[in-house]
Formats: sequence, C-alpha cells, structure tokens
Amino acid sequence: MTAEIWDVIIVGAGLSGLSAAHLLRKRDAKLKILILEGKDRVGGRTVSTAIPAANGVDRWDFGGQWVGSNIHCSLIKELGLETFPQFNIGKKVYHLGGPGARVLTYRTSIPALSPLVLMDLTQFLWKIDRLCATVFVQDPSKTPNAVELDSMTLHSFIEQHGWTAELREELGLCSRSVFGMEPSQMSFLFFLMYAAAAGGLLPLLENTAGSAQEFKIKGGTQQLSECLAERVGRKNVRLGSAVTAIWQGAEWARVMTATDTFLCRAVIVTCPPHLAAKIHYEPALPSQRAFLTQNMPVGHMIKFIITYETAFWKDKGFSGEIVSGSSTGSPFCVTFDATSPNGNAALVGFIAGQQASQWTSKEVMERRKAVISSLVKYLGSEAASFIHYEEKDWAKEDYSGGCPVNVMAPGLLTYYHPSLRKPCGRIHWAGTETATQWCGYMSGAVQSGQRAALEVLAELRPMTLTQEEQEAVRQGQTVEGPARPTLSSRITYLPTSKAAVIAKKKPTLPVHS
Amino acid sequence: MTAEIWDVIIVGAGLSGLSAAHLLRKRDAKLKILILEGKDRVGGRTVSTAIPAANGVDRWDFGGQWVGSNIHCSLIKELGLETFPQFNIGKKVYHLGGPGARVLTYRTSIPALSPLVLMDLTQFLWKIDRLCATVFVQDPSKTPNAVELDSMTLHSFIEQHGWTAELREELGLCSRSVFGMEPSQMSFLFFLMYAAAAGGLLPLLENTAGSAQEFKIKGGTQQLSECLAERVGRKNVRLGSAVTAIWQGAEWARVMTATDTFLCRAVIVTCPPHLAAKIHYEPALPSQRAFLTQNMPVGHMIKFIITYETAFWKDKGFSGEIVSGSSTGSPFCVTFDATSPNGNAALVGFIAGQQASQWTSKEVMERRKAVISSLVKYLGSEAASFIHYEEKDWAKEDYSGGCPVNVMAPGLLTYYHPSLRKPCGRIHWAGTETATQWCGYMSGAVQSGQRAALEVLAELRPMTLTQEEQEAVRQGQTVEGPARPTLSSRITYLPTSKAAVIAKKKPTLPVHS
Repeated sequence: MTAEIWDVIIVGAGLSGLSAAHLLRKRDAKLKILILEGKDRVGGRTVSTAIPAANGVDRWDFGGQWVGSNIHCSLIKELGLETFPQFNIGKKVYHLGGPGARVLTYRTSIPALSPLVLMDLTQFLWKIDRLCATVFVQDPSKTPNAVELDSMTLHSFIEQHGWTAELREELGLCSRSVFGMEPSQMSFLFFLMYAAAAGGLLPLLENTAGSAQEFKIKGGTQQLSECLAERVGRKNVRLGSAVTAIWQGAEWARVMTATDTFLCRAVIVTCPPHLAAKIHYEPALPSQRAFLTQNMPVGHMIKFIITYETAFWKDKGFSGEIVSGSSTGSPFCVTFDATSPNGNAALVGFIAGQQASQWTSKEVMERRKAVISSLVKYLGSEAASFIHYEEKDWAKEDYSGGCPVNVMAPGLLTYYHPSLRKPCGRIHWAGTETATQWCGYMSGAVQSGQRAALEVLAELRPMTLTQEEQEAVRQGQTVEGPARPTLSSRITYLPTSKAAVIAKKKPTLPVHS
Repeated sequence: MTAEIWDVIIVGAGLSGLSAAHLLRKRDAKLKILILEGKDRVGGRTVSTAIPAANGVDRWDFGGQWVGSNIHCSLIKELGLETFPQFNIGKKVYHLGGPGARVLTYRTSIPALSPLVLMDLTQFLWKIDRLCATVFVQDPSKTPNAVELDSMTLHSFIEQHGWTAELREELGLCSRSVFGMEPSQMSFLFFLMYAAAAGGLLPLLENTAGSAQEFKIKGGTQQLSECLAERVGRKNVRLGSAVTAIWQGAEWARVMTATDTFLCRAVIVTCPPHLAAKIHYEPALPSQRAFLTQNMPVGHMIKFIITYETAFWKDKGFSGEIVSGSSTGSPFCVTFDATSPNGNAALVGFIAGQQASQWTSKEVMERRKAVISSLVKYLGSEAASFIHYEEKDWAKEDYSGGCPVNVMAPGLLTYYHPSLRKPCGRIHWAGTETATQWCGYMSGAVQSGQRAALEVLAELRPMTLTQEEQEAVRQGQTVEGPARPTLSSRITYLPTSKAAVIAKKKPTLPVHS
C-alpha cells in the first residue's frame, strides 16, 4: 500500500475544516488539500433534513440553526445564501417553579416573573457581566482571580449568588439550553470565558440584534458546508474516512484511516476535543494537551421539529416560544416557532442536559407523546394534530457523540488551557471550541478554521500572509486580536437606569443549537 | 485473515485483568482466556525496576507500592509474596505556608502545627467523616443530598469549611498526593465516595494499621502481576497488543488490535476510563457510558527514587518523611524512606498534580537538581551525594497517560454513574475505578477484576458460581456487598475525647501511588 501525498490534510468536514480549506485555497489554489470526514456527509454539527410538511416536504435544521447578524455574515453572503429572522411576535409561555406552578404568558420582553425574581435576575446578570468584562478570552488564566473562578462550578456560583429558587431553576434551564449540560458540569471561569467570547451573557440568550438567535439561513445551515465543499472541490473531501492515527516524522505527517494512509506537510484537526482525544498520536502529544482533550465534556441535546398544517399558535396569539422543564412535567426546556420561509408551519424544541440523559434511553414514541402532551397543555389541543415529528439525538450521532459544544470541567482552564490552540509539530488545532469569538457557535467554527489555515500558511506559504497575519500567527492569536468584550461594549445593549435594566431583561430564549 | 476464537478476552494485563483471568481459570481451567495488553509488560500501573544502589542494583516500585494489611492479603499470600512495613520512625519534616514559613520537624504523630490549625483540621475531618458515613458507595446518587454534593468541587467544600489558609494548603497537598490532582478537578461527592470506599479519609492518608500506606511488597508490587501471568499462562497474555475496536454481534464479540482480530463470547475491559474511551465500539455504547468514560480525568504523578550509600537521614534521626510544596519552593509534595528489604538506602517522592503539570516539560536534570536541592535543605548536605536518581512520569507512559487513578468531575456521579459497572452486551467493565472497596488502589483493581469475572461466569459457566455469587451478579453488586463504611467502623481508629482526637490526627502521609 503506497501512501498518497498531500500538502495539507484536514480532519473533519464541518464548518471549521471546510473554512480552513476554503481560505487555504483562496491564498494558494495549487495547495493540495484533502479533507477526511468520518461521517457520510459534510456539515459536522449542522445538518439540514427534509421532512413531511404542509406543502409536501421542506427542510429544517436538526443541528446548529441560528446565526447573528454580526456573525461572519460575509461568508453567508459570499456563498450566496440568505437569512431570515427568528419569528418572535406574540404571547410567550413560561412554566417553571414545580408541579404546582401556574402557566404564565407574556407579550413583552419581560417575563411575567415576580418583582423579586426580576430583581434577582438583574443583580445576577450584573455580576456576570462585571466578571465577563475581566476575562481575557485569549488566555483565561490571566483573568484576575482565575484559579478561584476556575475551581468552582457554575452551579456553585449560582448557589452563592442567585437569591431565589426561581432564578436558580431558570439558570439551570439556560445552561441546559446553551450547553446541553447542567451548571454542575462546567467550570465557572469557562462559563465566563464562553460568555465573554460572545460579548456578554445576554447575546448568548437573546434573539435580538447582535445576539446568537437572531437569524436563520433559508434552506438550512448545512448549505454553508455544502457550498464550501463545492468550492474546495468534492474530490478533495472523503466521507466515511475517520482518522484513527497521526504519526509525525521529520519530513512528513502520516495520517491514517482504517483503510488508507496519507502523507502531508501539515494537519488541521477540527473535530471536537473528545473525538480528537480518540486519535492515536505518535509521538504522543504533550501531556497537557492530552489531559485537556480527555476532559472536555460534550453536551447532550435531542432536537425535535414538529410540522403542522397551519401555525395555529400564531392564530391564537402565541409566538411559539415556550420555556418549561422537568419540574413542571415537560420533557423539553424550550421551543420556538420554526415555520419555514416557504410557509410550512413548524415548531422546534430541545430536550437537553439532564433531561436528555433521562429521555435518551426511551423509545421515540414515548418522547413524542410527552412532547406533544406538553405542547397541547401550553398551546391547545391543535398541537396534537401534527403532520410529522422528527428528532435527532446528537449523543447517538456517529463522529459527534454529543452537541452543541464541549465545555471545560473545573481546573482545566488554569492548568491546561495553553495547549488548546498551540500547534503540536505539524498538527494544528481548530474547531469551534478553540475560537476566541463566539466560541461554541458556527461563527467560532469559521474563525477557528481560518486561524488554523493561517498557521499552516505561515509554515508552507508565508508569502501569502499579510504582515498583520504573520504577527498574529507568531503570537498565537487570531487575526482579529484578542476577543475581549468590555463592559462598555455590553452597555450598548443596556439602558443605564436600573429600572430600565430590569425592564429590558429577558431571562429566556437561551438556545443556540 | 481468520480470526482466533476464545471464550473470554480481557483488555489489559494489569492487576485487574490478571485477577479476572486468575479467577476465571480457577473456576473452569478449560476456559480459553486471552489477555491483550498494549504495553510491552504486565502490571499496568505497577512497575518494579532495578536501579543502581549501594550493594550493586536493587528493585523499587515506580508505580503503586503500598498495600494495607486488610487489602486482599490473601492474594499476596497465595502468590507466595512477602510484605514489609513502611519505615516511619524518627523526625518528620513539614514545610508549608509560603516562602517565609519555618521548616518544622516533629517526632510524634502530631505535626507541629498551631493549635488553631489542628482544631481546624479536626473539625474538617469530622465533617468529612460524617458525610462519608452517609455515602452509598455502590450507588452514590442515593446519598442524601447527592446532587448538591456532586455539583461542587472538593475545592469549593474546602473553601467553605476549612477555616485556615494552612489547612487549605495542606488539603491541596493531600489531594495532589492521593489523586495526582488539584481539589478543583474533582466532584466533592466523588471524593466522599472514594474515601468511603476506603473506610474513611484517614485510611487514605495514613500508614497505620488498616490504612493505605501500611506495607510494601518485597521485590515490588509488579510481582503480583508477574505471578498471576505465570498462573494464567504466559501464552495467554499478548503484549504490545493494544485493542482498537470491539464489535458485538449476536453470537460473538470481535476484538481488534492494529494487526489481529479475535472472536470471543465475553470481553472484560480493564483499562482506565480515558483509555477505554479511545476504543471504537460497534454498536456504539449507550451515551451515558460514553459521557462517563470521556469525562473521568486521570491524575498526573512523577515518582522518583533516589538511592544512597547509607540511609543518612536515619542516622540523623529523620524518618525520611517530608511534606512540602511549591509555596515553599519544593518541586515534590511528599517523600518517604524507601530503603529496600536488602538494606539498600533510598528515598521515594512524588511530584504531583499542578506541580507535575509545571515540571513535566522540563529536562530530567532540572527536576533532579530541584529535588536534590530541597532534600539538602531538609535533610542536610549528605542528600547531594546520591548514587542514582530515577523517575517515572506516568503521563508519558504509553497506555497509561496518567496515574494513579481517574476521578470524576462534578455532575458525573449523579447523572452517569449507573453506567460505571453495568455490562454493555458482552462487554464487562473492570479496573480499580469500578471498585467499591479501595477504589483507586491495587486492592480495588483485584476486587473489580474478580467481580467482572463472576459476571462473565454467570453468563458462560453459571454452575461454577455459588448462590450468593449469582445473586450478587444479578443485583450488579460485588460479592462482599456494598462497601459502606460507617462512622462506627471509622471510630475504631479514633479515641472518643476531642482532645484525644486532635492528638491522634496526622494530616500528612497522604500518598498511595
């Protein structure tokens, strides 16, 4: 068996790997680039699937779906794709607080919470934003008091600083919706870093201008990867080719799948950390790197789409947004309107974190029954007359094993973080977990792929880099420079008086998958 | 390539795998058992190596070395091995508390701490022991208040309940010495479970009767595995054979290495969780199991042995025990006398946790210089005239990648623990991390191997099991039943009056690697 020879091999044909390849080819069209992907499709954690709908069939995102207007929209435009806003007009449903809690609805951006809980929320968000402003995203270990912040879980911080049980439940739901994980499972400093990389906590949670859930892509987000794969050349993307080992020698890196061996000058590994940890490396990676990737838990989300003849909830004055949880008997934590640009009515929802862990082993019919039963309770009996229920359990997806993102358990940021992006010989690291802006999002995936591509170009084709880019690579930074959101940048979202702050806060809308 | 056919394949030729094989063969000598091991030796996390010493060469343990008198001593006897006690007579050195701290020495079991710190230690140990007594080791999620205890790090508990900075530093050192990890890196409930599985916290830390550091094995602990391998038959142990994939079908499990394929009826996977997570399973393991093994961080220890012409420290009245840390400029956290039964003088010490992380990337000469320099400071200039310095960095050991044990990050025990020992089809799980008595120790490795062997026998040779054993397997328990130490069992170590409790406490001696 003779080994094929390439310039660059990219592990993973998700947004990160394809963005890397795209940039490499833009800078030097002669570079021989091969992308190896374990799945039988491109797109990684984005996948758009056609399911039965009111007008025949239509396509919905079963992975990452939302993009913000400030999130690499240049790529969306470059690829000729269009966005449309998340529908959010009408009554929102809020049902947390235990079995006896009332179902609340509200039309404004203020949930119908008691003044005490709103006060609590305000003081909590204020504390988080103050701390976020101190985080140095590029190297969180330089954050003031980093060891202390990294030695506690998000849960512990919530216990200490959330006054009301309602707020604590609400924050658990936010954690589940954003990370597919409970607040106990991540470092508080990691949480701050993640929020800081998005410009603050509210941008993670809202669907207003500049936040994570503002827009969707017509036809689905997987098109980003499909279009990039076309530009990179389909012959350069090998599906069903999971990388099992990477050997590095003086002249070459040798990349192996179960059946093939490839030689190349540089490798970009873009798969999530828990999958990168499964690859066998020779020589072994530095132990700090091994400890890091072995210990970044990935979240657990089951995403469902339900199609209907009509968007009956809109007719009844609902927006489609429901926030609920296991304490009130619901399997999902949040739903939204998902009516397609073609007018096919649908709802999207998420079973996440602990709830995903509880529901994953049950039969799909049982989950469907529980979901529909909750929707009937909140939106009316029309919810029972659906056309199609389709779901995706990301924990069961080969070469994903979880979604939406890997977090860091306590103690990792302060001890092992420097190895997150640091190249190991010919191996460069990408994937949204390595991003410094919108870490964990599609935008972060693109940023990380581009950053890794520049690192590779600095080695193989230094003349194609600007001086600024060369300097950034030398300093191990992204071209944009450290993404360090400041309180002042956050303040553009916030009115100045405390009352107004309360009035503007929306505790819900926390999903970005 | 035709596949070899076996009854049982065991992944890993450490104490756990070899104990499983030993029990299987005892029950049915005709069972065809194959052990596949990635390393080029048996013993897993135990390895005994000959190095230059006063009388030529002698053998020391560079992995697990201590056994307690109550720890599976039947196996030690059965294999014809002898134990000898850990030497602990003479002055002990204690140097924590920052750069300006005095070097303290003491001869009794009471460290020369201020009464305030001793009080603090006492109240802290009392709290831990009270909580340990509530832990149900077999299923920690049934512990009262389990979610809360599992949602915080050990660090957070120490911050809340340790009054003095001295105690908090001391407890960090204990964590480093016992787990090779910082208190921020593990769930507090996991810590309680671990202590409970040893009968309480003090047995983990002491070298008194019944505790973890009581005895060593003449000639080294690797002999346990060597002797077991002889009994199992060397031809049934294949070294250099790392398992890469396990496929399960209706009739067989198919176990693959890079070069070979084997068929069998049952598989016992004994390697540490982070290595078990690297194996490719078809069909995929249940997601709860995958989430668990992907998120059990392994500790980091560098163990060193230094041989001398004479045990000069004994002549000077020292025991050889030194407790120090980075705050007082020492690279190691603890040393002990390691003079061999043949009379070859030696000291053993540990660079662990955060300190290992700092020192691992330096050259061996730099570490040696720092270690010797600290020894000179504490024991006198004779420490500089050593015969040989030998060390083992377990993070760099192939098919280990860390030592002594994998812990659980917060949130794992309450959500994913049930999958720790639950067989997945034909695959059974062993390894010291799955033990319910002396989890993390050699004893736990033996217990877990035997438990997995009984599970396999219940499937393949049910007639070889007693009724009690069959019942235990059915209930997913170890034969000994749940190892639930009670406060009363701990009280046998403790006098009843508070003053006496203070007097008897020894905060140091925390190492078990």
